[in-house]
Amino acid sequence: MGEFDLIERYFKRPARQADVGIGDDCAIWTPAVGYQLAISTDMLVEGRHFLSTVDPARLGHKSLAVNLSDLAACGATPKVFLLSLSLPHVDEAWLAGFSEGLLTLADAHACELIGGDTTQGPLNISITVMGEVPRGQAILRSGAHVGDDLYVSGHLGDARLALEAFRGHISLPQSVFDAARCRMETPTPRVSLGQALRGLATSMADISDGLLGDLGHILKASQVGAEIDLSATASLMAAAHQWACPPDLLQTCVLSGGDDYELVFSAPPAARAQVQHAGQLANTRISRIGRITAHRELLLRDANGQSVPNSFRSFDHFA
Amino acid sequence: MGEFDLIERYFKRPARQADVGIGDDCAIWTPAVGYQLAISTDMLVEGRHFLSTVDPARLGHKSLAVNLSDLAACGATPKVFLLSLSLPHVDEAWLAGFSEGLLTLADAHACELIGGDTTQGPLNISITVMGEVPRGQAILRSGAHVGDDLYVSGHLGDARLALEAFRGHISLPQSVFDAARCRMETPTPRVSLGQALRGLATSMADISDGLLGDLGHILKASQVGAEIDLSATASLMAAAHQWACPPDLLQTCVLSGGDDYELVFSAPPAARAQVQHAGQLANTRISRIGRITAHRELLLRDANGQSVPNSFRSFDHFA
Repeated sequence: MGEFDLIERYFKRPARQADVGIGDDCAIWTPAVGYQLAISTDMLVEGRHFLSTVDPARLGHKSLAVNLSDLAACGATPKVFLLSLSLPHVDEAWLAGFSEGLLTLADAHACELIGGDTTQGPLNISITVMGEVPRGQAILRSGAHVGDDLYVSGHLGDARLALEAFRGHISLPQSVFDAARCRMETPTPRVSLGQALRGLATSMADISDGLLGDLGHILKASQVGAEIDLSATASLMAAAHQWACPPDLLQTCVLSGGDDYELVFSAPPAARAQVQHAGQLANTRISRIGRITAHRELLLRDANGQSVPNSFRSFDHFA
Repeated sequence: MGEFDLIERYFKRPARQADVGIGDDCAIWTPAVGYQLAISTDMLVEGRHFLSTVDPARLGHKSLAVNLSDLAACGATPKVFLLSLSLPHVDEAWLAGFSEGLLTLADAHACELIGGDTTQGPLNISITVMGEVPRGQAILRSGAHVGDDLYVSGHLGDARLALEAFRGHISLPQSVFDAARCRMETPTPRVSLGQALRGLATSMADISDGLLGDLGHILKASQVGAEIDLSATASLMAAAHQWACPPDLLQTCVLSGGDDYELVFSAPPAARAQVQHAGQLANTRISRIGRITAHRELLLRDANGQSVPNSFRSFDHFA
């Protein structure tokens, strides 16, 4: 099968969002008037972002999910995306699974594949996604104010728990391993929550490199500090996984595990009820874990209010 | 140097086009009202699209040039782009050269780098570029009409000539090799010509996989055929290179060489003077090489009007 047959068979579908979709030199698309575009790109490399044994449908899902998560972090509505794929060879079973996982998630968010590129080479998946946000309403990293509450969505640490089991560092009951692995391989981008938080959250980021690391980006961009209550973060890992996680690993998974694709955000104390309501609308748990401070540092406090040294490192591809 | 320092040092500059540039979860950008977006993406893999010995500044140039060429083929004006980069390791000299070549070409087209991703892995460069085109004026592959003239811009075959020399299949005088290599490594995207042809060209594509192959995409999309005058194509290779090219290789280089990044387009005979004027405006040579026909096949005719078998193959990554 050649390059063009491959695209035709696995990725090309009738254009709905796009004026011109796959098959010309460019895709042509007309964004809505009165909106800004939110645009993000993520590249996934075999052995670095996923294991070679991963199910291709799960990989297709995750490749788009990590990009949708960036749109969620800005409060944007997904619209269109492009896929570039470097493949060692044409494996039809793999392509069928990958495209199915990818396009099923795309359909769930009405986000249309409008173009891309395929080439031969080491397995590499690069996606660029575009969403719309009403003008001036994008939620940025730079908007946190001193005194704001600090929140995270959903559960944290499950992906890291699965990774530790994959690496053979720990062993988990099969049911826990399966559930944690599912969180690692098919994360749920918090797209509807992100949109529900427009006008409420003052700053937001998605948690891809670990809570403390991604919160650090908010603090730097907003020129503020934060305090985190460790008594509130202990329960961020799903209850069914907590009991199976070695106690000395729990905080590492939750605070710096990475690959969670939850949202960390700030909002004024006056908006607490509305923030919880946004969580209900999006059917997503919201946990208040601390506050924004004027001192430009990130403090961790235990249940007694005592400061605990922050020795957690977030993920850096070249560190 | 970590991932974030690398981006900061080599790629981040003040945002001008973008409302929010590099450094948030998404870039935020407001396209102009009354325009459509033209969007394209290309992935370049070491050993496949470029040799490991290529000068990094030339590679930076080419990585963006092949994307700008897709915008040119639609008649679009470049606006913004995103870069995803997989690197085996952080090589500061390489990054300095690559970013300089990339950003110099970007500046020449006022096309702003608004976001991206970096990761560790086999060398892979993935760029997504966006341009604007007045609503309804994008030049597509599907608009060729029976009776239209067929044109190409600039010179064809030089990149293939250089590649044959690199492969040791032929030897060239140093000055010819240097010039042909320059065409292969730093192609000039025909951006201003593409824009000048809006309202004139009925169909257009850029020549990345070879003239006959890319023309084939136009014919398929437009449901037409074409005749090419081989007497007109012989002189498409730059005169200084023709005499150094083995005669039996000349037609292969010109007709199916690939990596030319010139434009192939159709226009009605009544527009001949305007087409030449567009070429003058864009300071680019325009050659009329044939015509669009109703028979859905691609015919080559020699100087006597005799049909010549088409045995040329265009490039396919998985063929």
